[in-house]
Amino acid sequence: MKLIDINTAAPYRVVLGEDLAGSCGTLIQLHAGLSENAKTAVIVTDDNVGPLYAGTVEEALTEEGFRVLVYTVPHGEASKNLTTYGKLLGFLADNEVTRTDFIAALGGGMVGDLAGFAAATYLRGIRYIQIPTSLLAAVDSSVGGKTAVDLPNGKNLAGAFYQPSLVICSPDMLRTLPEEEFTAGCAEVIKYGVLGDEQLFAHLERFAGDFDREYVISRCIEMKRDIVVQDEHDLGGRQVLNLGHTLGHAAEQLSNYSLSHGMAVSVGMAAVAEAAASAGICSGECAGRIRNVLKRFGLPVSCEYSMDDLYEVMCRDKKRKGNMISLVIPKRIGACEIRKMSLQEMKSFLESAS
Amino acid sequence: MKLIDINTAAPYRVVLGEDLAGSCGTLIQLHAGLSENAKTAVIVTDDNVGPLYAGTVEEALTEEGFRVLVYTVPHGEASKNLTTYGKLLGFLADNEVTRTDFIAALGGGMVGDLAGFAAATYLRGIRYIQIPTSLLAAVDSSVGGKTAVDLPNGKNLAGAFYQPSLVICSPDMLRTLPEEEFTAGCAEVIKYGVLGDEQLFAHLERFAGDFDREYVISRCIEMKRDIVVQDEHDLGGRQVLNLGHTLGHAAEQLSNYSLSHGMAVSVGMAAVAEAAASAGICSGECAGRIRNVLKRFGLPVSCEYSMDDLYEVMCRDKKRKGNMISLVIPKRIGACEIRKMSLQEMKSFLESAS
Repeated sequence: MKLIDINTAAPYRVVLGEDLAGSCGTLIQLHAGLSENAKTAVIVTDDNVGPLYAGTVEEALTEEGFRVLVYTVPHGEASKNLTTYGKLLGFLADNEVTRTDFIAALGGGMVGDLAGFAAATYLRGIRYIQIPTSLLAAVDSSVGGKTAVDLPNGKNLAGAFYQPSLVICSPDMLRTLPEEEFTAGCAEVIKYGVLGDEQLFAHLERFAGDFDREYVISRCIEMKRDIVVQDEHDLGGRQVLNLGHTLGHAAEQLSNYSLSHGMAVSVGMAAVAEAAASAGICSGECAGRIRNVLKRFGLPVSCEYSMDDLYEVMCRDKKRKGNMISLVIPKRIGACEIRKMSLQEMKSFLESAS
Repeated sequence: MKLIDINTAAPYRVVLGEDLAGSCGTLIQLHAGLSENAKTAVIVTDDNVGPLYAGTVEEALTEEGFRVLVYTVPHGEASKNLTTYGKLLGFLADNEVTRTDFIAALGGGMVGDLAGFAAATYLRGIRYIQIPTSLLAAVDSSVGGKTAVDLPNGKNLAGAFYQPSLVICSPDMLRTLPEEEFTAGCAEVIKYGVLGDEQLFAHLERFAGDFDREYVISRCIEMKRDIVVQDEHDLGGRQVLNLGHTLGHAAEQLSNYSLSHGMAVSVGMAAVAEAAASAGICSGECAGRIRNVLKRFGLPVSCEYSMDDLYEVMCRDKKRKGNMISLVIPKRIGACEIRKMSLQEMKSFLESAS
């Protein structure tokens, strides 16, 4: 079992190890900093993950003396909206959940983002624990405190920066993940290699989907920790994490979320790498390695949408500052740069590759 | 013109003075700490206040070069819900409002709470300015960073602690306030006198509704500042501000918000003062002075609901910690104490007076 401390303004801990679901009650008592008045634990999960793990987690929490409630939402990004959010808050209020109680978000990124936003805003903030069950959530969304729901206008438009009190990451839970979702999560893992760790990237090139899960997940979390601690509120340094995301979010939205986040990031990463090679910012070999590793993992490197359609959506990107956007561009494997450009310049830059 | 600095983690300033609406553009440029990329100002107001002041504020902001959008909601507490909140966020997204833009909340507490919560969560947080147009908002809700909307289950159940970037308080705007709303706001003003300033209380006893507005408002804001800075996230010290609110919120909710917040606080304050006198915590004279000044302002000192009905609602109070609640009890004019008790003890305590 590995402990990774995240020293944000409100610090917290990631516990990483095999078979932790059954001991999550003890881990929460030890590491989550709960108030002695904590009485109720609300497990928020989805109808894919719930049947697999909610029983074990519920039992572990009941054994610690908590009243345990389970709230299950339909799986998929479509649940991450204000309607589900409002119903979840209503459930918490109906069950008289108080400020000292807590939420356990058991699931992938959708569940974590939704449950985290509910925790951030119910009674102006109660504690929550992340128990990621997808690779994407384990290496990305469960750490860093970004919570949100989508609006009809776009992804993650309503949310808050709100750190969890504990993250419990048990890679064995990923075994039940559908292959496509595991593959999608690998896009974010590859992203970490590209932006800051050539050794990790080389490990992924060599082993593809058979990589060493504990090594890879802990490296990703450590890199995310280092970035998040420097820039808790996403004002600058955290932008490197958006490698592949600007175009990716747009493709994801144009597909009405039928293209998953990971797949979309893969498309975005391939596009920006090719554009970087065309512009001489990285070598053709670097762009080729990125493209090849994505393909080796079975990830897409192009999409069906035209740059004009993608551009229209990117113009509503919440990371815009006025007409300017910061694009993350690979320089070599393990190093990226952030380049500020106008939306029009970004369009020309990305078109130069296609 | 008076400047009051509020040194919360994200510090900000209150500008207090006559006829400030026309210069709010300049004041915002000077004091709100906007990014140089700020392009768009969104005035959020209601259909009572908008026709009176939105034009002046809009002109003042346009003169400073901002693109100005106005979003008007129906007046009254009923607008403070997740549906209006979602529509407002949709409006911001439709109009491509970015992270460096800001909201100006022009109105009473409802508008400030709603617009503040939208600002706290749109794109995980953009700046907002409070321009209170009610006495209640001027002395209470515009300072301290409590933002929220109501759920069907209760008041302020979804929200965030999120400080404004500036508060512009122009007491002349209160002249257009309906008399009943002004009177309701006086309940909070009287509360400040009871909990911490006998001199202020004596001024109110002497002048009733003809009090010196700049003196009284600035004293209330200063007291609120001192309390809020000590306890930004409402973990302890800020509880004194809840004098009269535990029972008040319950009465407000039972009336389906036809009883205004101020009127409800007046009822709550009278009840807790009488109970305190019965229990020997304050003198009968102290409770009498509180009761008399409330009546002199035309404020109610009792309500039509039974203690059993009030109790049932109080059991869902978000300030509960498990089964315990902290009740604010006057000891003398200018000093209160916070007493932790079980919900049942609180019921007996309050019943002892009736």
